[in-house]
Amino acid sequence: MSYVLNDPADFADESAAGFVAAHRTLVRRVTGGVARATATPAGQVAVVIGGGSGHYPAFAGLVGAGLAHAAAMGNVFASPSAQQIYSAAKSVATDAGVLFTYGNYAGDVLNFDQAEKRLNDEGIPCHTVRVTDDIYSASPAEHTKRRGIAGDLAVFRAAAWAAEQGMSLDEVVEFTSRANSRVRSLGVAFSGCTLPGASGPLFTVPAGQMAVGMGIHGEPGIDVVPLPTANEIAARLVAGLLEEVPHDISPAGARAAVIVNGLGAVKSEELFIIYAGVEKLLTDAGITVVEPEVGEYATSFEMAGISLTLFWLDDQFEEAWSSPSYTPAYRKGVVAPTSKTPESIRESTSSELPEAIPAASAESAAAGPIAQAVIAAIRDMIERDADELGRLDAIAGDGDHGIGMQRGTRAAAAAADLAVAGGAGTGTVLIRAGDAWADKAGGTSGALWGAALRAAGERIGDERAPSASDVSDAVTAACASIKSYGKAEVGDKTMVDALVPFAETLVSQVTAGESLSAAWTVAASEATRAADATTDMLPRMGRARPHMEKSLGTPDPGAISLARAMTVAGHVLAITTKN
Amino acid sequence: MSYVLNDPADFADESAAGFVAAHRTLVRRVTGGVARATATPAGQVAVVIGGGSGHYPAFAGLVGAGLAHAAAMGNVFASPSAQQIYSAAKSVATDAGVLFTYGNYAGDVLNFDQAEKRLNDEGIPCHTVRVTDDIYSASPAEHTKRRGIAGDLAVFRAAAWAAEQGMSLDEVVEFTSRANSRVRSLGVAFSGCTLPGASGPLFTVPAGQMAVGMGIHGEPGIDVVPLPTANEIAARLVAGLLEEVPHDISPAGARAAVIVNGLGAVKSEELFIIYAGVEKLLTDAGITVVEPEVGEYATSFEMAGISLTLFWLDDQFEEAWSSPSYTPAYRKGVVAPTSKTPESIRESTSSELPEAIPAASAESAAAGPIAQAVIAAIRDMIERDADELGRLDAIAGDGDHGIGMQRGTRAAAAAADLAVAGGAGTGTVLIRAGDAWADKAGGTSGALWGAALRAAGERIGDERAPSASDVSDAVTAACASIKSYGKAEVGDKTMVDALVPFAETLVSQVTAGESLSAAWTVAASEATRAADATTDMLPRMGRARPHMEKSLGTPDPGAISLARAMTVAGHVLAITTKN
Repeated sequence: MSYVLNDPADFADESAAGFVAAHRTLVRRVTGGVARATATPAGQVAVVIGGGSGHYPAFAGLVGAGLAHAAAMGNVFASPSAQQIYSAAKSVATDAGVLFTYGNYAGDVLNFDQAEKRLNDEGIPCHTVRVTDDIYSASPAEHTKRRGIAGDLAVFRAAAWAAEQGMSLDEVVEFTSRANSRVRSLGVAFSGCTLPGASGPLFTVPAGQMAVGMGIHGEPGIDVVPLPTANEIAARLVAGLLEEVPHDISPAGARAAVIVNGLGAVKSEELFIIYAGVEKLLTDAGITVVEPEVGEYATSFEMAGISLTLFWLDDQFEEAWSSPSYTPAYRKGVVAPTSKTPESIRESTSSELPEAIPAASAESAAAGPIAQAVIAAIRDMIERDADELGRLDAIAGDGDHGIGMQRGTRAAAAAADLAVAGGAGTGTVLIRAGDAWADKAGGTSGALWGAALRAAGERIGDERAPSASDVSDAVTAACASIKSYGKAEVGDKTMVDALVPFAETLVSQVTAGESLSAAWTVAASEATRAADATTDMLPRMGRARPHMEKSLGTPDPGAISLARAMTVAGHVLAITTKN
Repeated sequence: MSYVLNDPADFADESAAGFVAAHRTLVRRVTGGVARATATPAGQVAVVIGGGSGHYPAFAGLVGAGLAHAAAMGNVFASPSAQQIYSAAKSVATDAGVLFTYGNYAGDVLNFDQAEKRLNDEGIPCHTVRVTDDIYSASPAEHTKRRGIAGDLAVFRAAAWAAEQGMSLDEVVEFTSRANSRVRSLGVAFSGCTLPGASGPLFTVPAGQMAVGMGIHGEPGIDVVPLPTANEIAARLVAGLLEEVPHDISPAGARAAVIVNGLGAVKSEELFIIYAGVEKLLTDAGITVVEPEVGEYATSFEMAGISLTLFWLDDQFEEAWSSPSYTPAYRKGVVAPTSKTPESIRESTSSELPEAIPAASAESAAAGPIAQAVIAAIRDMIERDADELGRLDAIAGDGDHGIGMQRGTRAAAAAADLAVAGGAGTGTVLIRAGDAWADKAGGTSGALWGAALRAAGERIGDERAPSASDVSDAVTAACASIKSYGKAEVGDKTMVDALVPFAETLVSQVTAGESLSAAWTVAASEATRAADATTDMLPRMGRARPHMEKSLGTPDPGAISLARAMTVAGHVLAITTKN
């Protein structure tokens, strides 16, 4: 658990501030994350990484010479928002463009993809290579669905070397992508971790047992076996990775970089014991170990776990792996000095001035407080249920659903308050709430709820008092937006399973002449029924966890929270509306 | 707890082997520890550090340019033996001499002092500066009794810089000693740690509480307070250190290096939050923070704790602190390449051939198996009681007494077996057993028991069958040896409290004509009584823990194990001897 806390809600921000303060000569704070203290040389592709907090040195600790140019920093175990990623990338981008590279998780994919689109729309070329090194998270046939774990370091090193060599963006993408195809990892866990301020761990491993295939977000392992000896652990990890050697490589005679990564509570002394076993087994298999790294490179708070990564080298990859680096957390060899960023742009987190609130009709502004009250009610429901939602998510996910919804709804409600105080129309209240939600919550749910509220707000507009059919149209637009961003369909056991019947019922009830409040109540009960029905054995949207199919058995937390939100929204509507 | 284990008894050795394997380009294995891969330049003082295992990166991770030339590596939480320290120092010593610098713990002091004497006797000048940064472990008036914790790093950096500047040994000692006088630390703990293979933690901190003044060996804190917020922790640490600013320094306007050290389970994200609070408070006090370090520098397995260190700089100390370094675990700036150690001396752990067993009389050799049986019985007693002795030690000490005695008695019994098989006389059996005990156990008890057995063996010799008065003389010699090494007197609540009445009773009983076996039995019961009487409120020998006076209330584990050993020895004598 975390012992060092002020307000848990401030954990990630305070930690980031302290990180930057401790490394002022190396990194600067930028909107959305951190960047190298030195300016990106003209013509050099900028490598931008990022992800949730709680994985130090991933990701901020890996910013500097020989590694990333910038890192977008999300909240605890939550993807940074698209806005954060975009801003962090802008702070280091040159005309040569931007490479996004990060671990393959649904929330990161959603948000990085939005940021990539925005950069490209602005004429800054941007491409993505997702790290997919965790062999246990999907079958070889579905290797593009695999998660990224400690192999991040190897892929980031390759990307940075290619960029620093002066390769073009296309070349950097090709090189990084090939590197990713040669990086494989496998992890085991002995205990879970407890998120800052949470009352219990995300998961536990029974005493005397070991979970195989754990992720770095506290996702439990997939197989549970009796705790083996250190040498048996080393043998299992090596054997697993030798079963998945890339097709064009023959292990005997090959050269491989090796990373033994500690997840948090497994200490260096133990990691060295594992390394001793790993090195012997690899050497016995005819593999030459090149510049091994034994330590913490991608952690999960105080989770007890270990992973082994092999990076199958060729001459170029070996040059990349062996090249110098100098970041807060990763230093090797001798790095040539580079020019400092001009003082004038060093600290660029000054928040932009809020945009003026658009003019609205009196009727639309009069309905703004209803939208405000709905959002406040959802926030209050989440405050009450956050722990339960987190536990639900922890069973098969990363356990951050509760706190992510908490951050998002708090920010959304605060933004709605400000908008209403400024006389905003109903549409603007929803849009401001949605943007704040996406930006502060990050993660998957933040991106989806933010997009949904924005779509609804745009449909409702600021011109007139929204009618029942305006609202049902807005919900339909929100539903379409979530399906478009999230790529999920009904039956995928996501929030879409609850949202679609909600929207369809609402439309049919309103069309049949029911009042909004009555129609909403019927639709909300449909959503609740559908959310409960997400309990089954299928994997959830966007998650790389096919092995989990056999162990599910709980409803999708996103669907549950959507249904509960619609239910409390119905209560507010019953009180505040007459039509 | 440690999850990654083969045989717990091999933990430290296997970890050291893996550490060296992972850092072959930087360090080489030498007898007793590790040394830089590069040879010490002619005329340069060699800085030799060391201590128990379980504190990584202290101590092996701190060997390299800008830090130590070699580190002696003891077993888990146990001092290296004098032999190990001597050997590690020899591997890097030049004519310019050797500086020993290490944290001030009784076991380390005993063993380093013996090694220092041996080097000086051989004409290699050697001096010592003990690190005493932990302000909570003794009052300002008794600052030389304080423990060394994470301030080790600052003192080692100063020592290395002075040596690398080409200063003479006297100058290096003076500079390092002045540095130590300007380094102050204070720590807090939230949970204990569990030694590899142990069934439970050395100590626990009640949930929701924080212990102030913890050590790095799992020593519990001295005051227990309700768990404060992160900012309150930072404030407490800063306030504590600002109460103890060196007399010649005025904080306002001063410059200080800062180390925020994590003990194991408190992760980087939390350390950065503490650092943010610390930096603000120091800045508010007018202190300029110079090149802060936030991370793990002296750990205690997975113990949850934090310490703050301030190193009050002047121009020279700032130059030392800011100078480049490149070790397995500590890298900053750019280090000039140095010459590699010639390949021929790179791996120098080949164990020396055992010395031939000295000739013995048939009578003395015939009594060897009795000494062998006594030692085996003590080993068996320790196997049975090790956990209990460890728990006893953990109440006020570092909890390693049980495992230290286990390692020592196993090695002693094995050495006695070999000696008897080789036809050794009784004296040689005891001497071989004692040397093996000291070398394998390390720590305080290892050094003392080793010295005692050697003294007894030298007195008994290999010439004749030992008489009852030979044995009582030998015990008297052993007693004198322990008092001489350990500097403890009766009443200090150490094993001496049990040993002196044992020896005196044995002598008086034998002088009165009792058989050895009968005399021994009476003496052993005196020892037991005296050991039980060590329960009180006084601090234990050589330990820097005056604050503990108020919280003791258990007997000294060293006295208890001595009394039990003498008791089982009496059983053996009753069976095997007739006189």
